[in-house]
Parts: sequence; C-alpha cells; structure tokens
Amino acid sequence: MSLSEHDIVLFLSSVAVMLFFSRAIGEFLKKFKQPIVLGEILAGIILGPTIFGVLFPGIMNNFLSYTGAVNIAFQGITLLAVVMLLLVSGLEVDLSLVTRQGKVASLISLMGVLFPFAVGFGVAWFFPNELGISAKENHLIFALFVGTALSITALPVVARTLMDLNIFKTEIGFLIIASAMLNDLVGWIIFSVILAMMKGNSSGLEFSSTMLMLGVFIVVTLFFVRRVFNYILPKFEKITTYPGGILNLILVLGFAGAAFSEWIGVHAIFGAFIVGIAIGDSAHLKEETREIIQQFVTNIFAPLFFVSIGLRVNFIQNFDLGIVLIFIALAFVGKVVGCGLGAYWGGMNKEDSLAIGFGMNSRGAMEIVLGTLAFQAGLIQEKVFVALVIMALVTSLSSAPAMGYFLKRSKKKLNFKDLLRKDLILFSDADTKEVLIKELCDFAASKNKLNKEKVYEEVWKREQQFSTGLANHLAIPHARLKIQSPLVVTAISRGGLDFDSLDGKIAHVITLLLTPETEPELQLKLLADITKNFHLPDTAKELCVSANSDEVISKIKQLS
Amino acid sequence: MSLSEHDIVLFLSSVAVMLFFSRAIGEFLKKFKQPIVLGEILAGIILGPTIFGVLFPGIMNNFLSYTGAVNIAFQGITLLAVVMLLLVSGLEVDLSLVTRQGKVASLISLMGVLFPFAVGFGVAWFFPNELGISAKENHLIFALFVGTALSITALPVVARTLMDLNIFKTEIGFLIIASAMLNDLVGWIIFSVILAMMKGNSSGLEFSSTMLMLGVFIVVTLFFVRRVFNYILPKFEKITTYPGGILNLILVLGFAGAAFSEWIGVHAIFGAFIVGIAIGDSAHLKEETREIIQQFVTNIFAPLFFVSIGLRVNFIQNFDLGIVLIFIALAFVGKVVGCGLGAYWGGMNKEDSLAIGFGMNSRGAMEIVLGTLAFQAGLIQEKVFVALVIMALVTSLSSAPAMGYFLKRSKKKLNFKDLLRKDLILFSDADTKEVLIKELCDFAASKNKLNKEKVYEEVWKREQQFSTGLANHLAIPHARLKIQSPLVVTAISRGGLDFDSLDGKIAHVITLLLTPETEPELQLKLLADITKNFHLPDTAKELCVSANSDEVISKIKQLS
Repeated sequence: MSLSEHDIVLFLSSVAVMLFFSRAIGEFLKKFKQPIVLGEILAGIILGPTIFGVLFPGIMNNFLSYTGAVNIAFQGITLLAVVMLLLVSGLEVDLSLVTRQGKVASLISLMGVLFPFAVGFGVAWFFPNELGISAKENHLIFALFVGTALSITALPVVARTLMDLNIFKTEIGFLIIASAMLNDLVGWIIFSVILAMMKGNSSGLEFSSTMLMLGVFIVVTLFFVRRVFNYILPKFEKITTYPGGILNLILVLGFAGAAFSEWIGVHAIFGAFIVGIAIGDSAHLKEETREIIQQFVTNIFAPLFFVSIGLRVNFIQNFDLGIVLIFIALAFVGKVVGCGLGAYWGGMNKEDSLAIGFGMNSRGAMEIVLGTLAFQAGLIQEKVFVALVIMALVTSLSSAPAMGYFLKRSKKKLNFKDLLRKDLILFSDADTKEVLIKELCDFAASKNKLNKEKVYEEVWKREQQFSTGLANHLAIPHARLKIQSPLVVTAISRGGLDFDSLDGKIAHVITLLLTPETEPELQLKLLADITKNFHLPDTAKELCVSANSDEVISKIKQLS
Repeated sequence: MSLSEHDIVLFLSSVAVMLFFSRAIGEFLKKFKQPIVLGEILAGIILGPTIFGVLFPGIMNNFLSYTGAVNIAFQGITLLAVVMLLLVSGLEVDLSLVTRQGKVASLISLMGVLFPFAVGFGVAWFFPNELGISAKENHLIFALFVGTALSITALPVVARTLMDLNIFKTEIGFLIIASAMLNDLVGWIIFSVILAMMKGNSSGLEFSSTMLMLGVFIVVTLFFVRRVFNYILPKFEKITTYPGGILNLILVLGFAGAAFSEWIGVHAIFGAFIVGIAIGDSAHLKEETREIIQQFVTNIFAPLFFVSIGLRVNFIQNFDLGIVLIFIALAFVGKVVGCGLGAYWGGMNKEDSLAIGFGMNSRGAMEIVLGTLAFQAGLIQEKVFVALVIMALVTSLSSAPAMGYFLKRSKKKLNFKDLLRKDLILFSDADTKEVLIKELCDFAASKNKLNKEKVYEEVWKREQQFSTGLANHLAIPHARLKIQSPLVVTAISRGGLDFDSLDGKIAHVITLLLTPETEPELQLKLLADITKNFHLPDTAKELCVSANSDEVISKIKQLS
C-alpha cells in the first residue's frame, strides 16, 4: 500500500490548512493574552466534526477526516509531533532547580500530586457514573486515571504565566517552576503505570516486568545518561558539525527513549520526556540548540497534534455539563488546596500560598496529551475526554488572573529588601544624571523585556518635574508603568555624580523604582521604604566600597 | 486502520537508527571533507537490502523494511521531509543575484541546461538500451528524462564547495551561484513537465491544462506572491509572535504550494521549491528564521529522506558498470563543456571557464531527489536509479578538487584590482600601527571565517621582522596562511599613522595581503602589483578624500 497522488494532495493541503487556522486563531487570541495552544485546540474544534462537519458535511467527508492511507500517514506525523513535544517539555525541566528549592518545592509538589490524586481517586471510586465512566471500563483503573488527570500540572503554561506576570525570575517564580517540574515527573510516572496496568499483557510483558524496566529506565536515564551526556557534550560538539550534530543526537536519544518506553509497555512519550530531562539538565547545552528544536517543534509540529484533537471528537455532542463542572470543581479544589497547603506548611503566607496554588493549577497542553492518550487507549469515553480538554483550558486561563490577584494582596507587604536581586545591581561610571538614568532604564528594560524607550521616557519625564536626588547620597528615579509587579534596579556610582540632591551632596546609590501603574500606593510605600534604609548619612558611601553585587546585597540586607 | 503498539516501536526505533547512522557516517566522512549527504546515502545503503539485508536477513525483515501501516507512516514523513527540503532549497535561491549577474550567468545556465540536455536526450534516444531503458518505458519520455537528469545542478552542494574553496563571495563565486540557481529553476520546470506528460490523464487533468496551470502557478508565485510576501512581511511580523508566526507562515505557504502543484499533476516538491524562491527572495526575511527552518530540516528531516533511498534498492545487485560509466561520462561532458562554453563565450578565460564548468557539475542531493521521484513514478528502473545516485556522488565529489585546480592555474594571472571588493575596504581611526593591524586582521578574519588570533599572530610576526611600511603613504602588512585563495583588505586612514615607512612618511593606505601558504610566488607577485599601483607620491593621499568604499574602488581601478 502506498500514498496515491490524491492522498498526497489531501495530506499536504490538510497540513497547510491545519497550520494556518491554528496559527490564525492562536494569534488572534494572543491579543487577549490567551495562550496560543488554546487557538490550536479551537482550530481543531472548528475544522472538525463539531462545526465544519455540521456546516459542510460534504467537504468534511473528503477533507480532514481521513481514512486509509492518509489517516495512517497523519498518525505517523502526530506521533512524531507528540514525542518531540514531550522531549522539548523535558528539556525545560531543570532538576538542579528542584534540588535547590529543596523542602518547600518538595512539599508543594508532593501535596500538589497527592491531594488532587486522592480527591480524584476518591470521587471517581465512589461516584463513577457521575464522572462519566462507561460500562466497559475497569472501575479501579478509571479511578486511578481520574486521580492522575487531576494531579497533572502543565510546566510550559506555568512558565508562560509567570513570565506574563513578570515574576518568572523571582523567588516565588522559581519555587513554582521547581514544584511544577517535580509534579510533572511524578504525574507522568503514575500515568505510565496506569497505562501499563490497563494494557495488561498486550505488550508481551508482564506488568511486573514493565514496572521493573520502567524503574531501571528512569534511574539509568536520570542518573547515568544525564551525567554521561553532560560529560561528553563539549567533546561531542568539538568533533561534530554544529548545530547539526547535537540536534541530531538529541533527537536520536529522544526517539530511542520513546521507542524503548513504548516497547516495555509504557507510552512512547514518557520515554521522550525522561530523555528530555536528562539532556536539558546539561549546563553545556547551548541556548541556540534548544531554541532551534523548541521553535520548530512548538510552532510546526505541536499545532498539528493539538489541531488533530478537535478533529477526533464532536465537542458539542459530547459536551456533558455535569461531568464538565465536576471535573473543573475537582481540579480547582485538588490543586489549589493541595499546593496551597504545601506552600503554607512550607512557611509561606496565606496570599502567597494561594497564589502558588493557582499557579500550579494550569493543566494546559499536558492534560490534553494525557487525555488524548487515555481516550485512544480506550480508558475514557468521549464525554470525559471533552470534559478534560475543557477543564485543562479553564484551569490554564484562570491561572494568571487568580495568581495576579493574590500576589497583589501579598505584595502590599513587599519592601525594598524583598525586591533586591544580585542581577539587578549595576556598577556605573556614568558622570551625568542623564546618562546614568538612561543606563538604568536600559538595564531594567533588558531584565524584564520592557520597551526601553518607553521606560526612559516615563522616568525622564518624572525626573524633569522635580529632581529625585534625595539626601544622604541617595537618588530614586521612578515611574509607574504597565507592568504586573514592581522592579527595583540599583546603580552604584563609586565616583558619585551630581543629582541636584536636596542636601547638595553627590549621589552614590541610585535606585530606579518601576511600579505597576494601577498601584500608586505601592510606589509611595516603596519610595518611603527605600529612603528609610538610607537614614544614616554614610550608608550609601559604604556600599561603594563593595567588591561586587553580592556584597552590596548582603550589606543592604543588614541595614536596619 | 491505525498504528499498533508494535508499529510505533518499529517506527520510532527506525527513525532513531536512521538518524544515528546517517549522522555518524556523515560526520566521519566530513573529516575527509566529504559532504554529509554522502554519509546519509551510505547509511541507507548499509542499513538497507544491499548490506544489512544480506548479512542479517532475519532482522531486516522485521526492521527498516516496512510493510503495511509503518510503511505508510514512513511515506508520510519522507514526503514532508522532501517537500521541506525543496522549500529550504528554494529559500536559498536569490533571484536578484541572477539578474545582477546578467548576461554571463544567463549564458552559463542556458548552456548548462541546453547542452547536457541535448547530449543526454540524443544518447538516450539513439542508444536507449545502453542507458538501461526497460521494455515497458516510453522511449521519448525516457530520453527526455535522461536529458533533464544530466542538466540538473545541486545548488546546496555548489554553495558548499564554493565556501570550502573560500571563493563563495568572489565574483566567480557569485556567477556560479547565480547560474546554478537559474539552472535549478529551469531544470525542475522541465522535469515537472516530463512527470506530467508521463502521468498522462491520471491526475484528472489534460496535459495542456496541467501546463497552463503550471505556467500560471510559476508566474503568479514568482511575480505576485513574491512581492506581496515581501511587502507584508514586516507588518506580519509586527502583529504575530516572532519567530513562531513567520515560521508557520513559511510552512503553510510551502505545503499549500506543494499540494497545489501535486493537484495539477506536477510533483509536490516543485510547488514547494517555487514557493521557497518567492519567500527567500524577501530582504525582510531574518537570518534567524532561515536558520531555524534550515537547521531543523537539513539535520532531522532530510537525512530520513536520504537514508530511505538506500533502503529501497539493492545497490550491489543493481549495479551495472556500463550504465554507471556512461552516465558519469555524459554528466561530465554535458556540464563541463556546456557551462564552460557559456562562460568562455561570456568573456572569461579558459581556466576560469573550466573551473565554472566543474563547479556547476555537482549533481548532489537534487539529482538524487529527481532520481527517486522518477524511480517511484516508474519512469526508470533500479539500474538506472543506482547509476544516477552514483553519478550524483561522483560529480559532487570531483567538483571541489577540479575547480581548485583550474582556479589555481587561472589565479596566476590575478592582480590587485581583481581582488578589490567594496566590502573589503575599511575606514580606520586607529592611531597606532598595532591597533590598525589588529583591526585589519579581525576584519579579514570575519570576512572569510578565519581564526582572527591566528591571522594576527602571523601578520604581526612578519611585521616585527621588518616594517611593511613602504613609500608614498602605503603599507602592506602580509602573511601566508592555510587558505585557498588570496584575500586583500584595505584600510584607509584619513589621519594617517606612523608605520616606520621607508620614506619616513605617515601611512594613509594600509593593505593587508593574505595569500595561500602553498603559493609563495603569488604573494610576491601581488606585493609588487599593489606597490606598482601606488608609484605616484600622492595616490594614497587622494584616496583619503573618498566619501565611501565605492569611490575608493573606482579611484583605484582608474590607476595606471
């Protein structure tokens, strides 16, 4: 059997149409700050049996609803797509970050897996019908699946949300990312076990052998392969063509891992994910290499997978409000309470704990991948699949606003010292106020991906109204901007410079304060707090003799 | 029908094995300066029926020799791979370069298509059996195909060869590239016509309609789509996510073009190629965007296609020495004589004409793609296919050494004025000899991808032996390096600087002369030639009042 000319036309034009629609809708939604993956799924729902299938049944029978050879070719592509997608997701996991965040991250992710799992398993065990179990499904496996489905967190969506909120590189951001990583790892392991249980002996291996080999695979990959890869990478790059050699190696390992995990009876994507983690952890892996793989996979292959989800199922016919609402409710309760409690027990305040709970609540693409696999494996029926997809979208979309709300409440207690970061300290030789402010604005803009002209415009406008040079060698240029959280960048001028200060002294410490325009009171509070730290006449001068940013920070933290 | 678990294991592990072997062999051959594509093809021959199939017939029957679903899935992947490969090849074509090179390029590519085509057609027409026609093939179409197969040039291989010889950005380099581009375009158009002729009415369209639509497609894409794309690109990038949006757009257009050309009865890859040309021509297309597509396609997808070639056929069983030798002989005669005559008639000397002829002789990947399509379409039998693949490899591998040989003979006549280029002129404010020489070396290194430390080390070593400051405000620092062709970079110092010159005057024109270490006489000759141009005392000073590099060049060209 082979692809006929007609098949080729169908196949290529479907790929073009799917890519086009997914992007067009995705870019449109992005204007409203929605993730692109939402557009990709909507494109599938629109192009598939739900909408186009009803409006143009004639076209749909010929186009995008494949049978025979085109269907198989398409399965091949979506298989490669989802394997590469999980490989890329694995690349983003940084195990050392998890270790560094230590206890609190472990508590959050442990609670973030256990609690939703328990909630899901319990509800599915006692009320299977309300959750849409079908007669032919195994009760235990169904309950295990629901538990797992609720305990998944989508790392890429979480990362995007943190970036949108400008807190990706803050302590709370690192904590959430680390927890989500660990959470993902544990969640996928549980899911693999369930899939293997369900398949029984169909892969030719006993369940116990599958588990044994799964364990060996995880340990070997994460401990042995990870170190070997990190060790050989620089040598490998020397003897091969860059970036071709390393791109090739990453995909060879990814596909090999995928094939192996499929062979032992666990889904292929799990192997790709674990291999991705092992590879991505290497400090020698260049940003450019990640970029090439990530851009190509997320922009070209992932959309084909996500669009194909909408093509499988009629989302209107299989929409069951009851099941959808139950899944959404369980999802929120499970994650927000679970992760929130973990964070609270880890010593965080109530607002931050809730923010973390909502941050970890995003199910995004990972839940949809999991749902698709479960649906294909016959583990769940259409209605549950639709409910999972909708739950994934609702949890992801609500994450950023809810987090923002609780962080804002928590931020009221923010002070200057909390906002200090080593990479936000700058030693400057500028000898005029204008040059220094320009430097600070450029630096701040580069740190938070802001428009540097805009930042400078606002800060300079304020500066011209009345100089921000205060007493005791301190100046605090400031502005309110369209940002989500305050940003404080500090320049140390060892030589000092004229800042038209109130006491006529030259300025040695110049702190640029950027706050959200919606929060005037936060700006005033921080201005007062920074000034308070410099109430002694020589504090600023003493900072000038610091050797590096670390020393500056530690000196400021000791101020009273 | 769908992919079973066993199919998935087979599919993914084959992809991993194919990528691994193709790369490993490719990187190994690269140490011997052979193109990576050779390794990819050899990997297929080794893994396929030719070697592994004979050594391990048991394994081969289960692995890499697919039937049923895996076969179809694999066809889907290689189809996408070859479509993307031609899209990328199209991106590399720069139509404006062809126009700029004008008459000579047109002569070379016209002769480079017509002459080999005539030779191939004639021989295949009168001696079809010697060329391996099978009884069931149409005599006319076979002769047309052989003509086309001989007239193909592989742009990517040509470009690589020119880079290896360090003449990519010289006039002769541009000329060869421009000719190869035009040649490719014309060759693929002819091949599409032949495929359409052969298919007859199988695509549902009359041959005349196919031709009409093909013409309309080419004209609309190259004139209309090209301009519209170039016009909207900057606006498009503003409203979409970078680089996701543009990556997506390029692939959507590529796949749509491919689907369209397949639909009108011309192979899909032709549409992708033409769309690639239209897109790649845009001055607004960022290098980074090209890079992401190109790296991913050439390193991940193209290998799958090239490996799959070796999997199709037993290269030993189907090796017919007579046919192979005839094809190789015809290929050399056709291209070297055709392009050589074109260049000679265009006014080039004999050595350069022969160099161009051998430069254009590379058939590389393009010939293999063409042969594969013809083989799949039943246009040629295994023996001819094998002969074409071998001919493609032989012509590609012999191209660089042969070109190098004739260029070296031709270079003996090289003088200073021939080596001047606008982008090799530098205006410098350096005020010491050492800084200026460092600047010149860095500049030269960046132009020819040399190691700047190494260049500086050699030049400075020479400079310390005895100053290269000559009379009449001229200095010529120089060194012999491991390069293939001489490089002359000229700095204009309007202020002048002390160079310990023979006549005690300050230096205004400082020309850095780098020549191949194997040709000491060339260095002497060029040193003398440069000095001769500055035999009048004020020539160098007059160059200082030039407004820009263009003016410098035109003034030097007028010197006698």
